[in-house]
Parts: sequence; structure tokens; C-alpha cells
Amino acid sequence: MKKSFVERPPSLGATHTDHSEYQKAKNIELIKDRQRHLGNSILFYHDPVQLVRGEGVWLFDESGRAYLDCYNNVPSVGHCNPRVVKALADQARQLNTHTRYLHKSVVEYAKKLSGLMPRNLDVCMFVCTGTEANELAMRIARAVTGHKGAIVMEYSYHGNSTLISEMSTFDSCPNTRPAHVIAVEPPNTYRGPFRANESSLGEKYANLVDDAIAELDARGQKTAAFMCDAIFDSQGGLEAPHDYFQLVYEKVRAAGGLCIADEVQPGLGRTGNMWGFQNYDVVPDIVTLGKPMGNGHPVAAVVTTPEIAESFAASNIYFNTFGGNPVSAEVGMAVLDIIVDDALVENAKSTGAHLRKGLEELASRHPIIGNVRGLGLYQAIELVLDHDTKEPAVSVARQLPDAMKEEGILIGLAGRVGNVLKIRPPLVFSKENANQLLAVLDRILP
Amino acid sequence: MKKSFVERPPSLGATHTDHSEYQKAKNIELIKDRQRHLGNSILFYHDPVQLVRGEGVWLFDESGRAYLDCYNNVPSVGHCNPRVVKALADQARQLNTHTRYLHKSVVEYAKKLSGLMPRNLDVCMFVCTGTEANELAMRIARAVTGHKGAIVMEYSYHGNSTLISEMSTFDSCPNTRPAHVIAVEPPNTYRGPFRANESSLGEKYANLVDDAIAELDARGQKTAAFMCDAIFDSQGGLEAPHDYFQLVYEKVRAAGGLCIADEVQPGLGRTGNMWGFQNYDVVPDIVTLGKPMGNGHPVAAVVTTPEIAESFAASNIYFNTFGGNPVSAEVGMAVLDIIVDDALVENAKSTGAHLRKGLEELASRHPIIGNVRGLGLYQAIELVLDHDTKEPAVSVARQLPDAMKEEGILIGLAGRVGNVLKIRPPLVFSKENANQLLAVLDRILP
Repeated sequence: MKKSFVERPPSLGATHTDHSEYQKAKNIELIKDRQRHLGNSILFYHDPVQLVRGEGVWLFDESGRAYLDCYNNVPSVGHCNPRVVKALADQARQLNTHTRYLHKSVVEYAKKLSGLMPRNLDVCMFVCTGTEANELAMRIARAVTGHKGAIVMEYSYHGNSTLISEMSTFDSCPNTRPAHVIAVEPPNTYRGPFRANESSLGEKYANLVDDAIAELDARGQKTAAFMCDAIFDSQGGLEAPHDYFQLVYEKVRAAGGLCIADEVQPGLGRTGNMWGFQNYDVVPDIVTLGKPMGNGHPVAAVVTTPEIAESFAASNIYFNTFGGNPVSAEVGMAVLDIIVDDALVENAKSTGAHLRKGLEELASRHPIIGNVRGLGLYQAIELVLDHDTKEPAVSVARQLPDAMKEEGILIGLAGRVGNVLKIRPPLVFSKENANQLLAVLDRILP
Repeated sequence: MKKSFVERPPSLGATHTDHSEYQKAKNIELIKDRQRHLGNSILFYHDPVQLVRGEGVWLFDESGRAYLDCYNNVPSVGHCNPRVVKALADQARQLNTHTRYLHKSVVEYAKKLSGLMPRNLDVCMFVCTGTEANELAMRIARAVTGHKGAIVMEYSYHGNSTLISEMSTFDSCPNTRPAHVIAVEPPNTYRGPFRANESSLGEKYANLVDDAIAELDARGQKTAAFMCDAIFDSQGGLEAPHDYFQLVYEKVRAAGGLCIADEVQPGLGRTGNMWGFQNYDVVPDIVTLGKPMGNGHPVAAVVTTPEIAESFAASNIYFNTFGGNPVSAEVGMAVLDIIVDDALVENAKSTGAHLRKGLEELASRHPIIGNVRGLGLYQAIELVLDHDTKEPAVSVARQLPDAMKEEGILIGLAGRVGNVLKIRPPLVFSKENANQLLAVLDRILP
């Protein structure tokens, strides 16, 4: 199971790994206690920030200093949203038990959630985390197809269990992966094996899936599923050619596989559409959801068709102790209601467009910005040393999160070599918040 | 991935599987909606109970009828315990974010939790569910040992992910299991391959692990871990011979494997000791926790030694978005505090002993009871048609949960053929509650 790190993934790993570097940090005693009892767990920043309070798009440290949150995609409807907290507390006071007893909330929640999905994605299976959702999706895909293989992107991240970490290729080399996992090159239109200005770029990238299917066949695995997230978060927030997913879905289905949309990050409004896959006019066979579903409460789901759900249930028992309990259901419904009532999908689209325009304006004055891309309130800027060679500006990028934290902005990196600044704030982010971020970026970027 | 069911597991599956049987049920419209949007998910009872409120050991249906909860091990400190609800609501109002920022609560919680563990089990890795805990434990065991194989019990249940469901042997036959999983016969002192009155029973059962280790070696897998829960929940609540775990741990460690105690069910007081493994005077290398940790809030953990944690972290990045967030940490601490302040471990011991005495008294008058066993507030009675042949009284047992529900008692079955009634109430169960249960059992049992 040992993995050799190609590159420390900045979007997933710590700003750094050597804990001796914390020696100059403000909260050194807390850090030492933490290292002793939490082990070498991931901690952001060279001088890690201690947060004590959150409200809307703002986080506050122990000295009362405010930070504009441009990083966190879990508290989508705003940190400590009072409607969510009320739903949580009210139901926790009333009843919290598993779903083997009848309860109205989980049924109502499933109706509401599937009502927001394309036709026939009618069955919800509730779990607690994105990992559990992707695990269940793969169990379903394998049971229903009778195949074992998975096609994922290079440098993907889908979760932390054994199978799903094998399918998370960000920290593995192709030759160390198990036979059932094949990664294809993500459809990068800025850099990659194909020329960006070719009109058939979507087709060229999609054709890589033909090779993956053939290779899984050759290995005796066959294609159970294609799993991909529509914003390509770990790859640095790509915008795929519009026909990419349509072409890939056709190929995967022709090979007898299922198409799984990992909507843990893009789902629930992030991209300016309710679902990330809507940006590409496809309908998946299985949708997995997580992170923002409970605004921080651990709730996640697999949504699929009655036919697929039934085929799985015919030969598999699945039960999740906490999944879909009354508290999770009430919290999940509150989040859906807020997204609709407060028009947060529309806000992701309009504020996202405003932010994008600002980032493009910055790019015209800061040559270190090689590319601006993204959907809705997921925007990414790729930093390069040279516009022709596109050499990644890795060391500049790696200093940015620390530097921006000093300016009161929390932000993170993404991409294979960590030269992409990703902007992924709560969906209640306003145009004024975007302007604050843009002003700091303008001041800090070389 | 298709599994062939040896036997529908009564402890894990529904009372029945044919949804057409619900036709006469009271809440038929809700059941139909549920089937449409939750799929064929597990639902207890032929006339499923709709619960709307919980308090202490009591659950209430929509008509206001009270049920004594003798089944649920998650709400350990009582349904809707006000101290837990307050901790949950107060922290959710304040801040809820991941652990890549510094926060005092998770460090304090880890200190408190590891403070209750044997020496050197000092590092806590927080996750959301027992499945995630067992997944992480296996990832750690494989990474640290360099081996792949797992030794588990026959008819085990450890969780619902791909790897952990492969290690959950309750619904698979030996010849359909992957090469890395070997199940041994659980140390049943009532029935099984060895004679119950032999003094060397612990040794005989433990020796089966020698064969498992040899078989994993022969398959080129080698032993990464032995995983077992100390109450043998799915096997029908066994009491192992006292030397069993000591002997097995020695063998597993000699083979280079790690000993994982799945304390998701026995942990946190259930057995009358804080940890199930304490009943057998062993110290595991890795402890996994779940269910009662948050009294229903999805929090779980892996606890291990600094050496093992460090060895894993050297080659693996692990991060869990919701695991150990401030809300989970505050809820988890509230549960620990209540267990200590309200002396619930002691209550599990004393009320468990009272219940046990009553069950033994029932056994003396109801010949259908073949065996009474269990630890603390996990007690099991095995129903048989004949004390000599020990033929399981399957059909009587299967009618009991429905019949007892009609008498206002919620209870479940366990064991390979479902002839074991398991009594596993919240730890706030009183002697009076035990007497209520005993009176109903006396009335209902043939």
C-alpha cells in the first residue's frame, strides 16, 4: 500500500510537512499538543491560524482578527448559518436515530433532493462523507455491471478509503496502481498533450478513454465506472471542452460501464448551476454528493435511478448507521431551502462572473497570471514564469497562501505542481467580497 | 462483487425483504414514498414503527406511544441527552470547520480520549463513521506492515466500504472471498467445533489463527491485521474464553501483523469496562471507535501509538473533511464527560449483572432459552428447540421483535441463523427498565 509521492499535493497536503518549521509559530504549545495527540495531521500555514468563530464569509482568530474565507466550500450557505443551526438543534432535541425505523424527514429530504435532479435520478442513499458516497457508488457500479475497473483522471482526488484512495491518483505513479484503476489525462485546454487551439480538443481528450477501456479489458477488469468531478478541483480547476463529457459518457456506456459524477465539490450551486454536470449537458447514472450538503454537518449521498438501485439491492445489503438520520435530514433540507430561498446558485453565477472579470483584468496587468479559468464561484488562476513556455511559477505560488493570510484572506493552492491559486469561497460571497480579494491579489502578485 | 447470501442476517438486515408484505402496515403512504426515494433500504418490523421523539431510554411513535429501547447502542448516554444537544448547538453557533486550521477542541478531545486508553495509545485520528475508522485502521496496518491480509471472524460485520465489506463475512461464503481475507471460527463456548467443557477451549480456537496465518502466507498476502470486536455482536454476543485474545494477539504479532480492536460497539462502557478489550486483558495496536461516540452525531476515531501513526504518515496522506471538526469534538467530549460523571460504565456493569441474573432465572423456567451470555449491557439469549441437540429455534426467534414491539419494547436479533435475541440498550438503562423487559420476555417466551 505504500505510495511514492510524485509531488506533495498542495491542494490536499499541508503547506509544508516538516513540523520543526512551526518553531516560530504563535500557538506553539497548542501545536505541540496537537502533534502529540493527532499525529502528523495536515495543518495549513507556517504560522497556523487558530480560528474561534465563523459568520457568513468571515472567520475570526483568537485575537478577534477577521479573515475573508476564499477557501472553504463546505460552509456553502455561510459559516454558522442560523437557519442550519436551528434545524440541527431543534431536531437533535427531538429525535436522532437510524433509518431502520420510519421517519418523515429522511423521506421528505430524499424527495426534495431528487426533485432537483434530472428525471429518473430518483433514489437517494444517504451516507456521511464524500468518501462513503464514492465508495458506495463504486460498490453499486461493480455489482450492477459485473465489471471491476475504474477510469479516473490523472491527479484526481475522490476520498480516503482503500478503494477510493486507489482511485485518487494525486499521490501515486501509474506503475504503482492496482490493475483495476486507469487514469486518463484531464481535458486541460491551457496545457497538456494536445494543442489548445485545436477545434477537436474535446474529442482528442475523450479518445484517451478508448485506450483506458481497452487496457481494462486487456487486464481482465472491464469498465465498471468512469468517475470525474466537473470542476477538476485537484487538477487546478479546469474548464473541459464542452463536448468532452458527452463523448466520454457514450464510450463508457458502450463498454458497459456506469458514469459517476462526483459532485462532492461542484454540486449544490458551486458552478452557477445546481449541478456541475449541467455545465456539460450530460446526465450521469450515479451522482455522489458531500461537503456542502450539511454546511459542515457530516451528511452525504448517492443519487441514482430506481433500476440501478434495485439491481444493487438484489445482491447487496447496505446500511449506514448515521446516514440519513433525522438530524442529518433536517440539516440537509435547511441547506437546500437556503440555496433556493437566497438564490445562491444565481449568486454563484453572477458573483462568479464578476470575480472572473476582475481576475482577467488582473491578468492583463500581472504577467505571472498565465491562465484564468473556472465555473461560477470556483475560479482558478494559474501562475507561470513565462507565457510562451508556461513554466509553472511554483515558488511564487507557494508563498501566496501565507502572504494572503497575513492580509486577512484565507485561500489555497491546487494543481499538479501547486502553481494554481484556487478561489472557492462560501456561496454567500458577495461582489464586495470579490473586490476585497481582487485588491489584495493586485497588491501581492508580482 | 456479487455476494451470495448464506442466510439473511437478522441482526443486520430487515425483519423481512419483500416489500409487498407492508401492505397491511399503518403508515403505508410513507412507506411507499420511502421505497420510491430511498430504494429497498432496510426497515424494521412488518408494521414498521414511525418514531417522532426520544428521551433517555424511551422512544415515542406518532400516536404518543412509548417504547422501551432495548436495541440502540448509539444513543449511549440517552436519546436527546440535553448536555450533548447543548454542546452540539453551542459549538455549531460558534464555528464548524475542518482540522487544517488550529482549534483547541479537537486537541482537548484527543487528550481526553487517549487519556482513557492504555499507555501509548496516544494518537487519535478522527473520522465520521465506524466504517471509516476500520478502513483507516486497515490502511494503516497495510502501510506499516507491508502485508495485505486480514484475519477476521466468520459472520463478522465491520462496515460497508469495499474493503471492509470484504472483511465483513456475514453475507459471503469462504470461496467467494478475496485472497486477502480469511475468516476463523469465532470462539463460541456454547456450540461450535470444540467441546464446551474442555479446559483448553481458548487455545483450540486461538490455534485456528495459526492456519489462517499460514494460508495468508501461502497466498502471498501475509498478515497485516487481525480485526475483531470483543462482544462478537453479529455472531450473537459471545463470551470468549479468557485467554483467547492473548493467545491470538501473540500469534498475529509473531506473524508481523497488527491487532485491531473494533470497539465501535463494545467501546465506551458497553461491557461494564470502558473498552471491550479490557475484559480480556489485552492491549491492541489500533483501536477503532464509532457508534456511541457522538450519541448519534457522526464522529468516529482510530486510536494508535505514536510509532504506528508516524510510520503511516511517512508514506500516506490522510485527511477527513468532517473528522474531528469543532462540533464533533465538543459533542464527543460531552459524551465522555457524561459517561464519567454519570458513572455509566459502572451502571453497565451493575444493571448488566442484574439483567443477566434475571435472564438466567427466565432460562430456568423457559426451556427455549438454551444459553444466556454477554458482557455488561450487551446480553444475548440463544433460543433452541432442544437443549441436547441445540437445534436453533429460528421461527420463534423471528417472531419476537414484532411481538415485543407490540408490547412496547424495541429489540433485535443476532447470530448466524438469527436465533439469538440481543439486548443492547442505551447505557442509561436502569434496573427498573431491565425488570420491565424481563416481565415482557417472561410473558412472551414459550
